[in-house]
Amino acid sequence: MIDIASRVYNHNWKIDPIVRSLLDIDFYKLLMAQFVLRNSPEVIVEFSVINRTNKVALTNLIDEKELREQLDNVKNLSLSRGESTWLRGNSFYGKHAMFKPDFINWLENLRLPDYHLEKRGDQYDIKFKGLWPEVMFWEVPVLSIITELRSRAILKNMARFELQILYARAMTKLWEKIEKLKCYDDIRIADFGTRRRHSFLWQDWCIQAMTEGLGKRFIGTSNCLIAMRRDLEAIGTNAHELPMIYSALSKTEKEIKEAQYDVLAKWHEEHDGNLRVILPDTYGLENFFKNSPEWLASWTGIRIDSGDLEKNAKLSINWWKQKGEDLKTKLLIFSDGLDTEKIIHLHKRFSSEIQVGFGWGTLLTNDFRGLSTNSALDPFSIVCKATSANGKATVKLSDNINKSMGPNGEIQKYKKIFELKSQIKNKLIV
Amino acid sequence: MIDIASRVYNHNWKIDPIVRSLLDIDFYKLLMAQFVLRNSPEVIVEFSVINRTNKVALTNLIDEKELREQLDNVKNLSLSRGESTWLRGNSFYGKHAMFKPDFINWLENLRLPDYHLEKRGDQYDIKFKGLWPEVMFWEVPVLSIITELRSRAILKNMARFELQILYARAMTKLWEKIEKLKCYDDIRIADFGTRRRHSFLWQDWCIQAMTEGLGKRFIGTSNCLIAMRRDLEAIGTNAHELPMIYSALSKTEKEIKEAQYDVLAKWHEEHDGNLRVILPDTYGLENFFKNSPEWLASWTGIRIDSGDLEKNAKLSINWWKQKGEDLKTKLLIFSDGLDTEKIIHLHKRFSSEIQVGFGWGTLLTNDFRGLSTNSALDPFSIVCKATSANGKATVKLSDNINKSMGPNGEIQKYKKIFELKSQIKNKLIV
Repeated sequence: MIDIASRVYNHNWKIDPIVRSLLDIDFYKLLMAQFVLRNSPEVIVEFSVINRTNKVALTNLIDEKELREQLDNVKNLSLSRGESTWLRGNSFYGKHAMFKPDFINWLENLRLPDYHLEKRGDQYDIKFKGLWPEVMFWEVPVLSIITELRSRAILKNMARFELQILYARAMTKLWEKIEKLKCYDDIRIADFGTRRRHSFLWQDWCIQAMTEGLGKRFIGTSNCLIAMRRDLEAIGTNAHELPMIYSALSKTEKEIKEAQYDVLAKWHEEHDGNLRVILPDTYGLENFFKNSPEWLASWTGIRIDSGDLEKNAKLSINWWKQKGEDLKTKLLIFSDGLDTEKIIHLHKRFSSEIQVGFGWGTLLTNDFRGLSTNSALDPFSIVCKATSANGKATVKLSDNINKSMGPNGEIQKYKKIFELKSQIKNKLIV
Repeated sequence: MIDIASRVYNHNWKIDPIVRSLLDIDFYKLLMAQFVLRNSPEVIVEFSVINRTNKVALTNLIDEKELREQLDNVKNLSLSRGESTWLRGNSFYGKHAMFKPDFINWLENLRLPDYHLEKRGDQYDIKFKGLWPEVMFWEVPVLSIITELRSRAILKNMARFELQILYARAMTKLWEKIEKLKCYDDIRIADFGTRRRHSFLWQDWCIQAMTEGLGKRFIGTSNCLIAMRRDLEAIGTNAHELPMIYSALSKTEKEIKEAQYDVLAKWHEEHDGNLRVILPDTYGLENFFKNSPEWLASWTGIRIDSGDLEKNAKLSINWWKQKGEDLKTKLLIFSDGLDTEKIIHLHKRFSSEIQVGFGWGTLLTNDFRGLSTNSALDPFSIVCKATSANGKATVKLSDNINKSMGPNGEIQKYKKIFELKSQIKNKLIV
């Protein structure tokens, strides 16, 4: 029996929209937006898309008109009543009314600002400029649109059965990962894979598989929409954009050096418990600890997002130990290029002395490696980052030189300020 | 959007019927039924189900009431108008009006006769007794009902995601077989997997995959219903039941020895070309050729269904050569426990000197080996055979002793008559 109504309804769409909700973003964006709206609502920022995997020639794969249609569709999105209700009524990290009424009122009226798009060589130059609390909402949707349009470009050349087998293999592949992970009863993993997912539907399937296969080991997803629909925990705290923008806004070298701590001091006033998670690698993790104020050691968690993960975890543990903190109450969250083997290794290595969590991203929601001809569906490393604030360039150093960004002169200046001597050079798979 | 109509419609079924059409059978049953109706409509036969894989304890897996409901459902089936139209209007093996109007008229009125069912130890004793042209229709549906009820017994304990992964893996497994087979441009394979399929829907998927993956290398299916619905060639000619029953009806040893040739002489009057396929192993292939009449060498094909397939193929080729036949016009059809490697090996071995075809059965439509705990979904060897004709036991010797059947005394008598000295003993996977 054919469902005629569904077919006719589907014909009504001019495009097949990739992002269909303002909540199809990472949870930390909402927390940070509330923070920015309270602390720096007038700052003008620019975000830029950067494809770190040059060999993926996006202009050859993605039609500019289609890309514009998808971005325009996001500009027309607004928070639905049910979404607003969920933000107001749901508890996040065990806390009710995480989002203040005036923030949700603002969010209900939010429409995403315009974008700048042009071809540059075989890449798209995409920029967003405007008020920080508005522009910041573009980061996740623009990435998930590009990655899914790229997937569609490859998939449209495949026959019906090839597609069925492709997904059968991808499902089998993920399930085999889950079967390995479920052997560790006290492992804790969240989905961080929204931005570079293969597609929305595939991410949604991956999350169902994680829920079904891992049970309590799967602690939630960073994707607000899927968390809402599937009644899962929304996961996330804050990101590099906070220290990057506050550093760019600083006037003296001393202010630049202190900006990343000042922003955490403000965060400290707003949040407690598991929402107090330090992301120490923006300008090098080692110096972050060396110069950090005393009160910061009381925070619950540290997120390890670049460099030699094991070494950085040990540095974090030693810092807490020096400060006399009880490791059993502390949490390390790993979130850099994770896959099954790395997760299991880090879990075995650290879970006996400290709480450990994993933010599993692109290799959860987009691991089609080995499943397509010429690796055409392999994930690639694309980001959307704040590149300037009130006209001044932002800088990120990171513990992996391949994750550094900013104008070269500024990078050198920051390296001097933060006394960053060595960075490792890890190939970016994702 | 939920299709309410479909859901309500599905609720109307008292059971989920496995066999929903009289045409969900092998094509050769129709050819043989027309033959029997013309030549021996009054013979009383008994067919019995024999599970050759004792360790699969069917009474522990399949509820007797459910089994009866499925069999009763088959008793209520009759040929639909569309099915009758297809039999009358379609061409089979390039020939129109293969089925005579009086046969189709008879078939339109056919309802399957009653069955006898009782538990014996951990197996079901299932027998069908009555007029040969009616009873013979039970063979395929009773087997596909038992194998699918057994699959359901295992599947009902699996969670939704386990099921999804199971089928993802099974699809991947079959597709890998197809990818190996498609390397051979001139290979010719038909689906013979109806009777011991995992389920109807799975067989239907396998056939779609073969169509999509193998193109012209996939020459059709023995399943009439799927051939009709998917516009494929219906494939098949005749089976052991003809020589077995005619031998049982014979009065003297001489008649027994000649019966298998007499039946082919009658077939010769009715059919030509690719429908003239010899199945020589009922009482041993080697002696079949030794004693065969001269005219038989003119037949187009020989089906190799037991024993050492390579040896029997060579014996067939040598017999044709001795008779001065042109091998390029001759066809060998292999149909015994085939899987990818065996198909490729036999294709490579013989296709340069003779036409070769493959009837790929259970390991096409039911290869769940390695996909379930304790091999619970592995295929097993179950058959439904004519065991008596007008009260006299039938005998099959075969070139594989594990495929022999009949009362022991009768087997010894037949071995003497057919001078069968050695049979190989091949483990029956399916």
